[in-house]
Amino acid sequence: MVPTKNPRLYIHEVSVRDGFQIEPEFIPTEQKVALVNALSRTGVAKIEVTSFTSPRAIPGLADAEAVMGRIDRVPGVQYAALVPNVRGCERALACQVDEVNVVMSASQSHNVANLRMTPEQSLGQFADIAKLVDSKAFLNASLSTAFGCPFEGQVPLSRVLEMIDRFSDIGIEGVTLCDTTGVGNPRQVMEACLAVQDRWPAMVFTAHFHDTRGMGLANALAALQAGIVRFDASLGGLGGCPFAPGASGNVCTEDLVHMFEAMGCDTGVDLDGLLDLARLLPDIVKHGVPGQVAKAGPSTRRYPLPAGQDDAGQTAGAFCS
Amino acid sequence: MVPTKNPRLYIHEVSVRDGFQIEPEFIPTEQKVALVNALSRTGVAKIEVTSFTSPRAIPGLADAEAVMGRIDRVPGVQYAALVPNVRGCERALACQVDEVNVVMSASQSHNVANLRMTPEQSLGQFADIAKLVDSKAFLNASLSTAFGCPFEGQVPLSRVLEMIDRFSDIGIEGVTLCDTTGVGNPRQVMEACLAVQDRWPAMVFTAHFHDTRGMGLANALAALQAGIVRFDASLGGLGGCPFAPGASGNVCTEDLVHMFEAMGCDTGVDLDGLLDLARLLPDIVKHGVPGQVAKAGPSTRRYPLPAGQDDAGQTAGAFCS
Repeated sequence: MVPTKNPRLYIHEVSVRDGFQIEPEFIPTEQKVALVNALSRTGVAKIEVTSFTSPRAIPGLADAEAVMGRIDRVPGVQYAALVPNVRGCERALACQVDEVNVVMSASQSHNVANLRMTPEQSLGQFADIAKLVDSKAFLNASLSTAFGCPFEGQVPLSRVLEMIDRFSDIGIEGVTLCDTTGVGNPRQVMEACLAVQDRWPAMVFTAHFHDTRGMGLANALAALQAGIVRFDASLGGLGGCPFAPGASGNVCTEDLVHMFEAMGCDTGVDLDGLLDLARLLPDIVKHGVPGQVAKAGPSTRRYPLPAGQDDAGQTAGAFCS
Repeated sequence: MVPTKNPRLYIHEVSVRDGFQIEPEFIPTEQKVALVNALSRTGVAKIEVTSFTSPRAIPGLADAEAVMGRIDRVPGVQYAALVPNVRGCERALACQVDEVNVVMSASQSHNVANLRMTPEQSLGQFADIAKLVDSKAFLNASLSTAFGCPFEGQVPLSRVLEMIDRFSDIGIEGVTLCDTTGVGNPRQVMEACLAVQDRWPAMVFTAHFHDTRGMGLANALAALQAGIVRFDASLGGLGGCPFAPGASGNVCTEDLVHMFEAMGCDTGVDLDGLLDLARLLPDIVKHGVPGQVAKAGPSTRRYPLPAGQDDAGQTAGAFCS
């Protein structure tokens, strides 16, 4: 059931990293900086600003240092960056990120396709990164394909637990369970979220869903019901995984905040401000985005009565149910 | 939480009525008949075939008698029709419908706009219809705007309970709680579904969601968790309410079935067969439809490894999380 005591939720905005990295056109640095600055003022708890990957691998984020250097740091907001290896971690720490987010997949073949490393090589990098980070930043690991792999299919929960065990040994402080290609279902999400929190009560867990098959918000609801209070989400629903294309990408921040706030949860986020930003996105990325609340308006929106409507009902009926 | 004993779920397909009624182009009778016949073989429990409204009000369903007369009746499938008044009920009964579905709104202004009647006039019609139906068909009432009204905003649960009290007095056997403009949230849905089942344990309740703000599947999950086992849904996500337009319409049948089946629930529906039909819809309605699983494929879909991929990872990394 929905928790009776409304928890404070923490929204992590990932559009500028997870969304922009797959945009075919380079988003100018100034636009990225402006968007991060505007997002900082909406009340999101964390922004994944960029990725310190090779510009050859992710040309869209080749301006990582420039973006990190120019953004305003709003107190209370955590500024995170994805880091693929030791070299990327050195670059991120030089930019004083608040959080280093390392990524690897729960499934072997996705790890190789996504990161060009075997899982053991990734874990080796994580150990080296952990030594480097020491306590200069929060160290989080995003576990991709935690609910299923586009190449291998099912990923058993035991594999997820095995990976978190390894993360814990390395000294990783937070783990994000990522449904990279939108294959997880609410029952599976609830079971996984309950299991990991039960086993590692001190670990900081985050849920990261994709809406590829329309289950993004249902999975977020299930995670909330299982006690998860931190959610990655992407403005407009930008993002996705190039290995498993679909009509939708990451779960949409404004749709997620809208649902949680309607349920009486406190996300700390100004929904109207977020919607204003979401409505700017199509101009920034030069295409439509999947988010729905920005199009339909929030559920509190009131519509005018149809023209000519009076109590006797002078318009033709619509018979909608 | 998700029920531990997986309930048998019943899927009610409404696209041919609730979807087609707002299509700008008339769908030829033969196409409607062919779609109903194909849907009958997917395992859905009920199909709302048409609406016995005035052809002036709903020109798209002017062929109600022709469609009802020509479809194959598959044993085990219930064939329902929407009925706006006594005259419509007479027409529906003449066609031997299995279920007469009457509709009215929980909010006054939506009832007037949608049906050209005050709520009391609607209830008067319902009483006359109930006498006419007697036991010649199952009598169901769809309560629109049960979770909120596009003109009035919030609809209190007390109003919903008051309406069901009236329905019960009239002899209505089933009630469908309709989130006509997609404003309900999972907490509200759960509370309402628990309350109505607690108060009328013998009444047959159905949940009818719209995905206008992306909450369709999350609301369906909440209803399931509250013990609801009957769900209206529309192939491809066709439908919507003309008074509150948005990017999405009714909750999409194949996306709903996909989620429930992935959770281990038995919907009785052949998902692959349903997806084949969903993929025909854009040609029938001459535009794209919002359903996502038909585009992305089910969560069990496996993708080929990227070209050139081997264990050493010869492709460029994507770094998706």
